[in-house]
Order: sequence, then structure tokens, then C-alpha cells
Amino acid sequence: MSLEPNKIPFWFRFERSGNMDEFQEACRKLELDPLIIEDMLNEQHLPKVEIYEHLVFLIARIFPNKDNLAESSMVCLILGERFVLSYEPGFAFYNSLLNPQKIPERASKNPESLFLLLFDWVVDSYLPLSTCLRRQADMMEEEALDQPEKDFSVRFQQLYKIIGNCRRAVSILHEDFMRLTPFNTPLISKSSQHILNDIQDHLRGSVQALETNASLLISTRGLYQDAVRQRQSEIIQHLTFITSIFIPLSFVTGVFGMNFANLPLLESPYGYLIVLIVMVLIAVWMWAFFKRRLKE
Amino acid sequence: MSLEPNKIPFWFRFERSGNMDEFQEACRKLELDPLIIEDMLNEQHLPKVEIYEHLVFLIARIFPNKDNLAESSMVCLILGERFVLSYEPGFAFYNSLLNPQKIPERASKNPESLFLLLFDWVVDSYLPLSTCLRRQADMMEEEALDQPEKDFSVRFQQLYKIIGNCRRAVSILHEDFMRLTPFNTPLISKSSQHILNDIQDHLRGSVQALETNASLLISTRGLYQDAVRQRQSEIIQHLTFITSIFIPLSFVTGVFGMNFANLPLLESPYGYLIVLIVMVLIAVWMWAFFKRRLKE
Amino acid sequence: MSLEPNKIPFWFRFERSGNMDEFQEACRKLELDPLIIEDMLNEQHLPKVEIYEHLVFLIARIFPNKDNLAESSMVCLILGERFVLSYEPGFAFYNSLLNPQKIPERASKNPESLFLLLFDWVVDSYLPLSTCLRRQADMMEEEALDQPEKDFSVRFQQLYKIIGNCRRAVSILHEDFMRLTPFNTPLISKSSQHILNDIQDHLRGSVQALETNASLLISTRGLYQDAVRQRQSEIIQHLTFITSIFIPLSFVTGVFGMNFANLPLLESPYGYLIVLIVMVLIAVWMWAFFKRRLKE
Amino acid sequence: MSLEPNKIPFWFRFERSGNMDEFQEACRKLELDPLIIEDMLNEQHLPKVEIYEHLVFLIARIFPNKDNLAESSMVCLILGERFVLSYEPGFAFYNSLLNPQKIPERASKNPESLFLLLFDWVVDSYLPLSTCLRRQADMMEEEALDQPEKDFSVRFQQLYKIIGNCRRAVSILHEDFMRLTPFNTPLISKSSQHILNDIQDHLRGSVQALETNASLLISTRGLYQDAVRQRQSEIIQHLTFITSIFIPLSFVTGVFGMNFANLPLLESPYGYLIVLIVMVLIAVWMWAFFKRRLKE
Amino acid sequence: MSLEPNKIPFWFRFERSGNMDEFQEACRKLELDPLIIEDMLNEQHLPKVEIYEHLVFLIARIFPNKDNLAESSMVCLILGERFVLSYEPGFAFYNSLLNPQKIPERASKNPESLFLLLFDWVVDSYLPLSTCLRRQADMMEEEALDQPEKDFSVRFQQLYKIIGNCRRAVSILHEDFMRLTPFNTPLISKSSQHILNDIQDHLRGSVQALETNASLLISTRGLYQDAVRQRQSEIIQHLTFITSIFIPLSFVTGVFGMNFANLPLLESPYGYLIVLIVMVLIAVWMWAFFKRRLKE
Repeated sequence: MSLEPNKIPFWFRFERSGNMDEFQEACRKLELDPLIIEDMLNEQHLPKVEIYEHLVFLIARIFPNKDNLAESSMVCLILGERFVLSYEPGFAFYNSLLNPQKIPERASKNPESLFLLLFDWVVDSYLPLSTCLRRQADMMEEEALDQPEKDFSVRFQQLYKIIGNCRRAVSILHEDFMRLTPFNTPLISKSSQHILNDIQDHLRGSVQALETNASLLISTRGLYQDAVRQRQSEIIQHLTFITSIFIPLSFVTGVFGMNFANLPLLESPYGYLIVLIVMVLIAVWMWAFFKRRLKE
Repeated sequence: MSLEPNKIPFWFRFERSGNMDEFQEACRKLELDPLIIEDMLNEQHLPKVEIYEHLVFLIARIFPNKDNLAESSMVCLILGERFVLSYEPGFAFYNSLLNPQKIPERASKNPESLFLLLFDWVVDSYLPLSTCLRRQADMMEEEALDQPEKDFSVRFQQLYKIIGNCRRAVSILHEDFMRLTPFNTPLISKSSQHILNDIQDHLRGSVQALETNASLLISTRGLYQDAVRQRQSEIIQHLTFITSIFIPLSFVTGVFGMNFANLPLLESPYGYLIVLIVMVLIAVWMWAFFKRRLKE
Repeated sequence: MSLEPNKIPFWFRFERSGNMDEFQEACRKLELDPLIIEDMLNEQHLPKVEIYEHLVFLIARIFPNKDNLAESSMVCLILGERFVLSYEPGFAFYNSLLNPQKIPERASKNPESLFLLLFDWVVDSYLPLSTCLRRQADMMEEEALDQPEKDFSVRFQQLYKIIGNCRRAVSILHEDFMRLTPFNTPLISKSSQHILNDIQDHLRGSVQALETNASLLISTRGLYQDAVRQRQSEIIQHLTFITSIFIPLSFVTGVFGMNFANLPLLESPYGYLIVLIVMVLIAVWMWAFFKRRLKE
Repeated sequence: MSLEPNKIPFWFRFERSGNMDEFQEACRKLELDPLIIEDMLNEQHLPKVEIYEHLVFLIARIFPNKDNLAESSMVCLILGERFVLSYEPGFAFYNSLLNPQKIPERASKNPESLFLLLFDWVVDSYLPLSTCLRRQADMMEEEALDQPEKDFSVRFQQLYKIIGNCRRAVSILHEDFMRLTPFNTPLISKSSQHILNDIQDHLRGSVQALETNASLLISTRGLYQDAVRQRQSEIIQHLTFITSIFIPLSFVTGVFGMNFANLPLLESPYGYLIVLIVMVLIAVWMWAFFKRRLKE
Repeated sequence: MSLEPNKIPFWFRFERSGNMDEFQEACRKLELDPLIIEDMLNEQHLPKVEIYEHLVFLIARIFPNKDNLAESSMVCLILGERFVLSYEPGFAFYNSLLNPQKIPERASKNPESLFLLLFDWVVDSYLPLSTCLRRQADMMEEEALDQPEKDFSVRFQQLYKIIGNCRRAVSILHEDFMRLTPFNTPLISKSSQHILNDIQDHLRGSVQALETNASLLISTRGLYQDAVRQRQSEIIQHLTFITSIFIPLSFVTGVFGMNFANLPLLESPYGYLIVLIVMVLIAVWMWAFFKRRLKE
């Protein structure tokens, strides 16, 4: 089912619909291989580029929802000799990237241009994606350096998985693409190869950006762990400091709290003053001892 | 020994049996190389694909028991010019994947189709496997983020080893397969190459999924370690908190527990009140000191 | 807009300007592909080298600001049959590396020499960069081994990211360069190939140096973590030492502080002396016990 | 010096002997290159396979001593046009693997068969080796999960180094072998290529098994570290638990141990009972507080 | 400036000298490319092997000072059609490896032999180097397993950097060498290719040995960290042990140190004995509790 009348006669556009008959019939008419159809109907299919004799078949994944990048959506593009077929199991591509108004004149002239345009739109959506993920990774980094919240680990893991998914989606497409370059198919004319180069360039840039993100995130985890360790170290210092000062003092009070009949100083009028002064000296000494050990 | 009369005349199917005579005789009749037979009888053999002049020889490992994925089982498939031979040292393939009823008409027509069908069934069993492992890895991740049990490490290690085994089994097969593609053997006709492509595609998908699982599991271990560290840090905080408050207070009680004859305040009617107030102030101060250090 | 009259007639030099008309017109006259122009106008573009039929197109990143190496700047160089075009979105290349006075006679004779000269200047700027980063990494290492400050992690992360950026910029250029060597383009004569070799050599040296830096920095992080762990270990030793000595002594004072009517020694004239001696013995024993445990 | 009369006339077998004259003379007669002889006399030589015009030269390392796998021993095999030469600097190969009685008829017919047989024996010795190491790695894993002894680290390191050595020995041989496959030398007939394939298969299996061992061992180290961390965490919990309960109680006793003249409750007949009840309440509260913090 | 009259007429040998005129003139006479000269004059140049039409140009690094392996020194060798040129910016090669007396007859006959001999000497110096580093790495390992000193980290880092430098120097040379094998230059005759093979073999052995060293060192760092962690764990055990025993006992003394008028047992003649027995029981119980927790 196409959502609006196709103004381009050679473009078969399909989005999810309750009734797949039209799609199935189009496939039959265009003589698509059943294995290709099976791949298109598998919503979890990995990205790939395949070149057949009379066909270029491409599956890509897009991330339409900026607020939930964990969700990805499949887009299938097929370039035939006299047609382009696009299929997706939802409306993500249609809603977020496809803009019929923006399809330039030349793309509506021949299938090759249309196919490259659609492919370009898919690939161009990866760069803002990696920019968005970069911003989130940067925020995590700042938090790790400053004051990590209690649920840092949980959010970290979420972002880590999202970046991993995106990276996989983009880099598999890029690899497949690289393997096939230069495309030796009569479907794509020599004069369009530079558009393919450009697309590949953008793919490569996105892969690079996503890998930079991933490695930034990994080093952020290290920062977080350092921060936790550092804080623990400081708490232990605090504990040691308090204990070092007061445990010896308490011992002194314990000594003069013993019930010996003839403990010295007890009866002396300045006895307690002397003891208090001694305690202050012990405290200072302990302080110094502690600080010196810390410095070592 | 075949368990039921083979309805397909060119299919030699063998499962484990007490008496290997029939198998040995079939091998002799089909003129299989002794080294191939030796490989088939080695139950621990690694997966491989080999292309001889008149033979395609394939060993794969399947994981028939969903409740114990540590157990794997070997399946051997041989495609000859006029026959297909399948062999396994147990009944795992027969019981879990092989369904003679579902063998389509065309596969019972020629060996090539049958071979590809059986191979496809083997490869198709890897995807549910990785889905199942994914579910277990997800559960471990949730536990690591929430409340890891005491035996987390033990279960983690088990799952880690299972995923490792599966990944190895699938990726070795995939590598061998890649190396040989496109299959230049007269045994597989040009028109069937796209089925091989499809099988390879599924293999690749399974390898990807299993690798994703493995990397998810590794980052789960990191989460678990963070959680242990975090909890330890909190216990030390608790210890430090209690100690910071009460050690100084105990010192104060120690001071007024000393038996000096003329310690001030002791005889004063409000002495103990004053001291108690001082102690409350110290406690508050220590609390604040501790909190401030924690924030730093 | 060119900042000074170009003395070399075939050199089209452009730096950022408020009005891009001149640049656009030059591009039109030189018949540059719109995709190349688009790449040039994307300031964040990754380095690359591309060889077209009548064009060598090169994007590199330079790091003009020695005090803020996190900032990088793009330089584009194009070698055509009868021209060289250089473009940058700022004045970084012009200010830091380009020195028209130093352009030798031969470079002003033909485009090829000029292009190679400019490229060489870009590549030559990477070595001092890596030397500068090396110095910073060495300083971090020394600090980690000696007395890491509190903000060590923050500064470490900054340097780590800078080195990562530089390494990426240089190694992508190097990879592209390697892939294209030897340059099979009529634009670069056979006799100039050795200059390309030399440039490649320098690129490789810079990549090596930056990778050495990165691995040094990573091992520095290990040193820092060891130092933090070591210090924590020492603080805990201190805590344990103080506690081991005084807790048992306090217990002894507690015993003789109990109000039992007939506790022995209390009335004896040397009672407290005996107890003090016992306490000294306990302290010595505890000291020895602690030291022995540490040695084990 | 050969230990027993060679029954196979074309087989030159040498083990270590005090007098190398016979060996040197054989080398001269067989016209071996001095560099090959030099390699053979270097007992620490890495494994390698080299194919010369009239020679296949192979160095492998075997691990003859099952109780001390840290010890490896060199074996050299040379296949010439009309001879096989085997050399080892000890008797390890002769004692552990070489069994003249088991040399089949066909191997004593031509050098090629003998060479392949000997090579096969060397490679076949790697699989039991990896099985033996696997058993040891499994035992370490169990210990790490259960109750690691104090010298765990030392034994771990030993096993780790042994597995590393074995892996290196086997994988270098495998790599060299792979690089040369298929062997384009007239010395090995086409009909024997499948034996080479089989040998390569076994080598590959051994490499895989040893790598699995190594990665198992590495994850075992992780288990061990987790166990140490876990135990430390529990000890700190214990410490915190004891301290949380008794420090506040000691403070209460300290309060009523102060010598104030008019401290309340002291003279009351149920005073001490009230205080004891209060202390029990504090203990219960502290217990609950501690448990709650642990759960958080 | 050559240090002694060259007995081999085609050998141009240069070591550092205050006056470079002779060197410059020789370069001019031999018609060396200015870029090659520039490379030779850069003392920090990475190792490389380059094959020109009439020239083989080689830069290697040697480590002449066994007591300070952090210091490396450059050696340049050039093989021309009728000459060999050796250059170094110091006397390291001359002093440590070059021994004119040991130059065999045949090497003084033609440039090719001399070049290969010198190259062989350079490469042969790498094996003792890696043996020496191995010994140091073994010593660090023993120390880590036994009793690491306080400056372990510092010395570790030094050795780690030295091994890294050596490894880089050797492996870059090896890589370049591999890339060019087999040398297709008329300068090296077919009959000398086996000498090149031998050199390559030795290079490979050195690379392997240095990589083994590096990985040994990395696992040594793990051992050291385990040891630090283990020791910290033991100190905490000690602390917990002491605290577990004495804190409850001190509480008991505190109870009977309270000044309640009618605390039971105080007036009883066996009161203190009963309390002491109770305290012993508590101590034993605490001991058992602690040990049980440790075992869990």
C-alpha cells in the first residue's frame, strides 16, 4: 500500500500495511527472487548490499527516533533496470527522511538517480545520529569527571549498547559497500560513480565518528572507576584520620579512668591539666604522623 | 543404520548405531577417502567445509539441547555427484532439526537441492540459538545492574563459556565458507549459488549476533564489578560515618570518666547537661565534616 | 579572497572570507565537481586523498595552535592539470605553515612542484606536533610516578582525547595515501614519485610517534591507578597499625576501670606500674604481630 | 649417530651425540645449504616450513615431557629428492613419538611418504598436549570459583606461560604452513596433497584448542580477582557490622561511666536495667540500619 | 671521516665527525638522492628498507649499550652497483658490532656480499638484546611473585618502555623487509636470496622473542597488582580480626565501669572472675565467627 499517489511512475514505494497483497504482487511482477523477498520481510535483517545481474539490493537500518536511539528500523531499496522499489516494515523512513517535495527533477527522470538519492538520504541520516550520541557521551564524561550519580552505571550501559548497535548497523553497511566498490553493474553508469564515492565517504565519516564515540565512552568508564576509587580512598583517609587522632586519646583517658588507688597525678590540682596538654600533644603528633605517611 | 526406510534413493542417512558395518560399507561403495571417514568418526572435530573434485564435505556443530547449550553435537554432510550422505554420532540432528515430512518435492529430486536444504536447516538452527543466549545474557545484565547473587560469577563463567563455544562453532564454519565462496565446483549449479549466498547471509547474521552477545556479556562483567566496588564503597562509608560520630563522643565520655579529684564540671549540677550538649554539637560537626569530605 | 596578490599565476589560494563569491567563481572556472566543493565547505571533514582523472584532491587537518591542540583546522589542496588550488576555512594554514617567501624557485614553475611542496609542509607539521604531545605525556608519566594531583584524571582525559584526535587525523591521511601509492596519475611525474615516498615516510613516522604516545599514555594511566591503589593500601596499613596497638591497650584500661569491689592489683602500691608494663609488652607484641603479618 | 641400524635406506636419522662428524658428513653428502645446517644446530630455533627447489625443510617443536610442559624440544625434518633427513638435538622425538615398528610398509617405500608420516606424528602430538593443558586450566578455574590457595597466582602464571609457549610453537608452524599451501614442489605429489590437508586440519584444530585454553585461562584470572575482591568486601562488611553494633554501645557505657555527681538514673534501682534495654534497642537499630544500607 | 684506512676499496665508511665534508662529497660522487642524505642525517629516523633502481637503502637501529638499552643508535647502509656506503651518527656500530678483522675474504670481493654481511651483523645483534631483556623481565616477574619493592612501578615502567622501543625498532624493519621480499633488484643476485631469507628468519625470531617479552611483562604487571590487592586484603583481615575481638570486650568492661549504684556482680567476691570468663568466651566466639565468615 502506498500512502499517496506515486508521482514517479517507476517508483514502487511500500510501507507497512495490514494487507501485503499489493506488495506481493509488485514483487511478482518485478520478478524478484523469493530469497530477496524473504530478506525484506525479516525486520531484524542486518544491513547489506548485494549486486545481482539485473538488480542492486540494499538493506539499511535507520534510527528515526531521536529520543530512543535503541530503536532501529529497516529500509530496503532495490534498483532494477526500469524501476526502484523501496520497502520498510513501518513508516519510519517515510516520516523522518523521505520528503517527496524535495525530490529533485533529475531524480524523477530515471531509476538510477532516484535510487542514489534515497540511499544518500539514508546515509546522510547517520551523521546527525553520531553527533547526537557524541553529545550524550560528552555529558556522561563530564558527569564522570564531576559528580557521578548513583545510576551512572545503568545509564552508561544503555548508551554503550545504543552506540554499539548504531556502530554495527553503519559499519556492516560500510564494509559491504567497500567490498563491492567500484560497482561493476550496468545499472549504475560511470558518471554516477562519483556519487557512490561521495556516499561511501559519508558512510566512512559516520563509522569513524561512531568509533570515536565508542572509544570515548570506554575511556569515560575508566574515568568513572577512577572517581569511585578516588572517593573510596578519601573516605578511608577520613576514617584513618579520625581514628588516628581519637583512639590514642581515648587510651589516655582510659589510663586515668582506672581505679588504682595510687595512680599518680589524680590528686594533684593540675593533674588533669597536664593530662589534657599531653593529649593535645598526642593529637598533634598523630596528625603529623598521619600527614607524613600520606605524603610518602 | 537408518531409522526409517529412506524414501529418497540417493540419500544415505546414518545416525549412531552399535553396528557401524552398514556405514562403513556405504563409505566403501561411495569411494570416500579414508581421511574423510576418519574426520567423520572424530566426534570433537571442528566445523569445516572442503571442496574436492567430486565431493563437497561439510562438518558442522549443532546445539540440540536448549536447556544445556554447553553440549554440542557434530553433523557431517557430503554431497557427491549422485548422492548425499549425512552422518551424525548421535540422534541430535535427526531429533531436533531433520523433519522428513517437511522435505519439499524439489529436494527429493536431486542431491544438490537436498544437500543445500540440509545445510540450510543446520544454519537456520543458529539464529534461535543466539536469540536464546541473548535472553540469558540480558538476564545476567539486569541482575548485575540490580542485585547480583553470590553465585553470579559462577553462572557468568558458564554462560561465557557457552557463548564462546557457540561463537567458535559458527564462526569457523563461516570463515571456511567465506574462503570458498564462490564455490567453483560442478556439483553446485550456477542457479543454486543464490541459495549459498542466502545460507552465507544467515551464517553471517548468526556470527554477528553471537559476537554482540559476547561483547554484551563482557560489558556485563564490568557492570558487576562496578556494582561490587560501589557496594564496598558504601559499606566503608557507613563504617566511617559511625566511627566519625562515636569515636570523638567516646573520647569525651572518657575524659569525664577519669578519676581526677578536681576535674571541673563534675560537681556542678548542670555539668552533665553541658557535656551532653557539647557531645551533640560534636556529633553534628562530625556529621557535617564527613558529608563535606564526601562531596569534595 | 586572497590576502596578497598571488605571485604564482597558476596558484588559486583561498582563505575564509565573508564573501565566498570569488571562491565559487574560481571553482566554476576550474570546473570542479560540486561534490568536491561540498566536501571543501564541510569544515569537519575527515582527511582524505582522492585521485580523479584530471585532479588530485586532498583534505588534511592541521593543528596550528600549540597551546590548544584540541583545535584542528582543515586544509584542502587540489592539483589540476594547469593549476593548484588551496582552500582553508580560516587562516591557520596561512598563518602557521605557509610562508610565500620560502617558496623555492622551482615550486613556482609548475603546479606539480607547488602541490608537493604544500603537501610536504602540511605533513612536516605533524612531527613537531607529536614531539610536543610526547613532552606532555612524559610530564604526566612523571607526575603519575611521583605525586599525582587531584585533577590528574581530568588532565589525563584531555590529553588522551587530544592525542586520539591527532592520531586519527594523521593515520586516516596515511591510510588513504598508502592505498593510492604508487599514484597512477599523469599529474605527478615519475621523477616526483620519490618526493611522494618521502612524504609518505614522514607521515608514517608521525603515525608511529603518535601511536607510541598513545600507548605511553595508556600505560601511564596504569601507573596512576597503581599509585592510587598503593597509597590506599598504605593508609589502610596506617589505620590497622594504630588500631592494632591501641585497641588492646584500651581494653586493658577498661578492665581496671571496672567498678568491681575486689579487683586484684587495684590496692597494690605497684599495681598500676605492673599494668603499665603489661601494656607496653602488649603494644610491642601487637607491633611485632602486625609487622609479621605484613611480611608474610 | 643413529641409535639403531636404519632399515630404511633413504632415511638419515640423527639424534644428539657427542660426535657430530657423521651428521656433518651426511649433510655434506646430501649437499645441504650451510644456512640450513646452522638453523638445525640452533636448538632454540622457531618452527618454520621452507620450500626450496629440491628440498622441503621443516622445524617443529615438540613437548615430550607431560609432567613439565615448559620444556620443549626441536625436531628438524628434511625431504629431498631421494632422501629424508631427521635431526633432533636430544632423544625426545625418538623416545616419545618415533616408533620404527609402527612405520607402515608404504612409508618405507619412498621418501615422500616417510616425510609426511613423520610430520603427521609431530602434529598429532599437539592434540593430547592441548587436552592435557585444558585439564589443568579447568582445574584452575574450579579452584578460582571455589577456594583459591595462596599460591594461586604463582601456579597461574606458570600455566599461563606454558600455554603461551605451546600456542606460539603450534601457531607459527600453522601460519608458515598456511602461507605455503598448496605446496608447489615436485617433491610432494598431487595425490599426497590430501594428506597435507589433513595435517593442516589437525594443526588448525590444535591452534584452536590452545587458543580456547588461553582465553579460558584469562577469564579464570578474572574469576580469581572477583573472588579476592568479593572476599575483601565480605571482610569489610564484617568489620563494619561489628563496629556499627558495639561502638554506639560503648559510647553509652562511657556516658554512665562519667564521674558526674548528679548523673540521672545512677541511683535509681532500675537504672542499669533501663540502660541495658536502651542498649539492646540501639544494637537492634544499628543492625537494621546496617542491613538497610547494604540492601540499597 | 673514516677511522682507519679502508682496506676494501668499494666500501665508503663514515662515522660521526666534526667535519662532514668528506661524507657530503662522497654522497655527491655516488650521486645519492638529496632525500636519502636528509634521511641519513636525521638521527631519530625510523628503520626502513627501500629499493631504488640502482640502490638498496637501509636504516636500522642498534642498541649498543647493554647497560642502558633505552639508548638506541642509527645505522645506515647503502648498496649501490659498485659500492657499499655505511654511515652512523656516532661510533656505536663501529665499536660494538663492526669488526674489520672478521670480515671474510668473500665479503671483500664484491659490494653485495659486504652489504649482506653488515646487514646480518646488525640483525644478529637483536637476539642477544632480547635475551638480555628477557632476563630482566624474568627478574621483575620473580619480584612480583615474591616481595615487590616500593619502586617496582617505576622500574617496571622503564623496562616496559625499553622493550617497547626495541620491539618497534625491530618489527618496523621486519615489516619493511617482508613487504619487499623477494627483493626484485639486480643488485642482489639470485644465489644470495637465501642469505636474505636467513636474515629475515633471524629478524622474525627477534620480533617473536621481543613480543614474548612484552606479553610476559604485561602479565607481570597483573601479578604485581594481584600481590598488592592480596596484601591489602590481608591487612584488612588483620584489622578486622583485632577489632572483632577487642571491641566487644571493651564494651563489657564499659558496662561494669558504669557508676550505677546497684549494678549486679560488683560486690560479689567472684564477680570479676565471672566477667573475665565471659570475656574469654566472647573472644573465642568472635574468633570463630570471624573465621567462619572468612571461609564462606
